[in-house]
Amino acid sequence: MAAAARLCYSASGVEALLDMEEGEVRRLIELLRERGHESPFEHASFTFAVEGISRACSHQLVRHRLASYSQQSQRWVRGDPGEHVVPPSIARVPEAARLFSEFLERAGEVYRALTAMGIPREDARYVLPNAVATRLVVTMNARELLHVFRLRCCQRAQWEIRAVAYLMLKECRQVAPLLFEKAGAPCEVDGTCPEGWVECPRYPGGRRS
Amino acid sequence: MAAAARLCYSASGVEALLDMEEGEVRRLIELLRERGHESPFEHASFTFAVEGISRACSHQLVRHRLASYSQQSQRWVRGDPGEHVVPPSIARVPEAARLFSEFLERAGEVYRALTAMGIPREDARYVLPNAVATRLVVTMNARELLHVFRLRCCQRAQWEIRAVAYLMLKECRQVAPLLFEKAGAPCEVDGTCPEGWVECPRYPGGRRS
Amino acid sequence: MAAAARLCYSASGVEALLDMEEGEVRRLIELLRERGHESPFEHASFTFAVEGISRACSHQLVRHRLASYSQQSQRWVRGDPGEHVVPPSIARVPEAARLFSEFLERAGEVYRALTAMGIPREDARYVLPNAVATRLVVTMNARELLHVFRLRCCQRAQWEIRAVAYLMLKECRQVAPLLFEKAGAPCEVDGTCPEGWVECPRYPGGRRS
Amino acid sequence: MAAAARLCYSASGVEALLDMEEGEVRRLIELLRERGHESPFEHASFTFAVEGISRACSHQLVRHRLASYSQQSQRWVRGDPGEHVVPPSIARVPEAARLFSEFLERAGEVYRALTAMGIPREDARYVLPNAVATRLVVTMNARELLHVFRLRCCQRAQWEIRAVAYLMLKECRQVAPLLFEKAGAPCEVDGTCPEGWVECPRYPGGRRS
Repeated sequence: MAAAARLCYSASGVEALLDMEEGEVRRLIELLRERGHESPFEHASFTFAVEGISRACSHQLVRHRLASYSQQSQRWVRGDPGEHVVPPSIARVPEAARLFSEFLERAGEVYRALTAMGIPREDARYVLPNAVATRLVVTMNARELLHVFRLRCCQRAQWEIRAVAYLMLKECRQVAPLLFEKAGAPCEVDGTCPEGWVECPRYPGGRRS
Repeated sequence: MAAAARLCYSASGVEALLDMEEGEVRRLIELLRERGHESPFEHASFTFAVEGISRACSHQLVRHRLASYSQQSQRWVRGDPGEHVVPPSIARVPEAARLFSEFLERAGEVYRALTAMGIPREDARYVLPNAVATRLVVTMNARELLHVFRLRCCQRAQWEIRAVAYLMLKECRQVAPLLFEKAGAPCEVDGTCPEGWVECPRYPGGRRS
Repeated sequence: MAAAARLCYSASGVEALLDMEEGEVRRLIELLRERGHESPFEHASFTFAVEGISRACSHQLVRHRLASYSQQSQRWVRGDPGEHVVPPSIARVPEAARLFSEFLERAGEVYRALTAMGIPREDARYVLPNAVATRLVVTMNARELLHVFRLRCCQRAQWEIRAVAYLMLKECRQVAPLLFEKAGAPCEVDGTCPEGWVECPRYPGGRRS
Repeated sequence: MAAAARLCYSASGVEALLDMEEGEVRRLIELLRERGHESPFEHASFTFAVEGISRACSHQLVRHRLASYSQQSQRWVRGDPGEHVVPPSIARVPEAARLFSEFLERAGEVYRALTAMGIPREDARYVLPNAVATRLVVTMNARELLHVFRLRCCQRAQWEIRAVAYLMLKECRQVAPLLFEKAGAPCEVDGTCPEGWVECPRYPGGRRS
C-alpha cells in the first residue's frame, strides 16, 4: 500500500519503491490519513467470517455496497429459530426475556409445521423473526473498512452492528496495526461528531463539531 | 443516451448529436444491445417507490449494489405485523394459512407487549417475522436494471422478488419502451439459459445453452 | 430526494410523503447535510456534456468511479491537435506560448503524415499530446457530485479540472439550488482544510483544521 | 472462495466449510462459472504493478471502475518522453518509425525547454504525447478480472491493452490456476462472440453467436 502511494509521486519503478523501512511506511500512512488521500488504502483487502449475527444485523451490514458478501440462504438452508440473538435490553427484563424466548420457540414450531405440510423452505421462512442467526463471508478493502468503522463504531449505531464493527476492527488491528491505528467513530479518530445526538453516552447533551 | 453513444464515434459536438430521428435512435440502441456495449445505458436512471414487499424480499433487493436505496427503518418506525406478505404456497393450503395468520397476529401481540414494557423499537423488532411489509425508494440506471431483470425475472428467482422485478419492468416499458423492449430473463431476451434447472416450468428437464 | 429521506423515519406511504412544503424540504436537506446522512442525495442524478477539455483533464475526471462516462474515442475519431487547451502559465509567457503552439502544429503534421502512410488512427494517436481536446458525457448523482466538488474545487486541484468542477457546480446550482447551496472545497463548505498546503493562495502558510 | 460459495447453501459454520478436497473445490468453481454465479469470485483480489504502458493505454485501463488504482502523476513526476511505447504498425514502417521517433525526441526538448522557463510540470506535461510511458498499481477482484479479460483479450480490443490483459491473465493463472482456467475473450471461454467484427482475424466475416 505504501509502495503504491509512493508510486504516484516518484519516477522509480515499483520494485525499488517496495524497499522501505518501517518508519518510512508509518510516516507515509500517517500523512495519507491526515490529508484524506484514502485511495491507496484500497489495495489491502480483508475477508471476514461473520457468524451468529441476527438477520436484523445482516440486513444493515449488506447495505455497505463497496464490499462483497456470501450469505447463508434461508431459501435453501433449513431455518432454525433455536439459533438466535437476544437483545440485551430484552435479556435484562425477565418478563420480556420469557416472552421473547417463548415466541422464538413458537416460531420454530410453526416453521417446522409448515415445512411438514409441504410448504417450501423459501416460503416457510416468512415466519422466521429478525432475531434468527445467519452467517456471512464479507470482503472489504481497508478504505471501506475505515468508512464502515466511522459509521458503525459510533454510539448512535445499532448495538449489534456496533459490536460486529468492534470485533472486525479488533481483527484488523491484529493483522494490520498501522492501517487501523486510527480507526473507529469520528469522536475517537479526530475528535469530531456529526451526529449531535443528545442521548449519546459519550457526549451527553449532544456535542457537535 | 443515444447522443452519448454517438459521441464516442463522432467528431461532432453534443448539441449536434442530440438531433436524431427516432428511427436512428432505435437502430443505435439495438446495435449497442446486440454488441453488449452497455455503458451508455447508464446515463438514464429511474427511481421507484416499492411498497408492501416483505423484509425477506427487501433483503434480497438491496444486495444489488450498483443502486441507491432509502428504506423504512424498523429501528425508528413502529412495526406493524398486520401489514405483511403471505406466500401463495401458504395461502393455498387452508391449514397452513391459518397457522401463518395466527402466528403473525401473535408477533404483533409480542411486539406491542415488549414496547409496552419499555423495550425500544430497535430491539422489539427482533421478533418481527420476514413476512412483515416494508417500503423503499430505489434508484437504478438502465444498465443495472437490465442486469437485475436478467437475474430476477428468471423462473428460478424467488417468487416475490420476481413479481417486483416484473412490476418494475412494466413501469420501465411505459416510460422508456425502446430501452426495455428486450429485457427480462436470458430465456426471453436471447433464448439462452445459464441455470439448467430441471424443475423450470419453462424448460422442464433443464435446458442449458 | 426529501421524500426518500423521510421514508426512512415514517410510517406513511411514499405518495403522502411527496406532499411537502418547500420550507420543510429545505430543513430536511440541511439536516441531512449537517449529519452527513448523504445516501438520499444519490436519488438525484445529473448528466453533463463536457466539451473542449484536454485529455490530461479527462484522464483525471474519469478516475471518479461512481459515475458514468461516454468519451469521444481517439481510436475511431480523427484526431485534430488544432483543437487543444493552452495552460494559462504557458499563455502568459510569449516564448513558451510560441514553442507550445508550434509543437501542437507539428503534432498535427505528424499525425496526418502517419495516417497518410496507412497507420491506423488508433496508432497515429500515440503522437497526440495531452493538450488535445476531447468531449465526454458524464452522469453522476448528487452525492458523488458533492464529493467531486470537495476534491476538485480545492485550490490544490489541478487548474483545468478545477475550472470544470466550478462550471459543473454552477449548472447544478441553477437546476437544484437547494442541493448545492453548500458545495465546493471543504474550506468553503465547512471551514476545514485537510490539505495543509503551504502555497495555498487562500491559506498562505497552510492552514490545517 | 469455495468455502464462501458453500456457505450460501449449507447449515455448517465457516471453519467446517474450509475443509474441502481439491477435487471438490474444482467441481464447485466449475459449477459457479457455468451457472454465472459470479459473486463468490469477488472474495479473491489481486494486485498488479503495471509498468511501461502508454498513457493511451492507462486512460483505457482506469475506465474499469470496480478496481483500485495508484498511478504515477505527471503533475509531480518529471516527464520523460524518452520512455515511450511504439505501436507495432509504426515500428514496421521505417519512414513512420523515423517520424515517430523524431517527434518523441522533439516532445522531450519542448518539455524541458518549458520547465526551464519556469512552467510548472503540471502544465509542461500538456505537450507530452499519448505514447509516453506510465506506471500503475492496480487491484481487482477475480470477478472483475474475468470481466476485464472478456473485453480486453478480444481481438477487437486495442492491441496495447490486449497485451496488458494477456500478461495479467498469465500472472493470474500462475497463482490461481483454478479460478482463471476458463478466462479470456468470449470466443475462447464459451465459443460465443457478441462483436460480429468482419475484420476479426479469428472469425473472418464476423461470426456472431
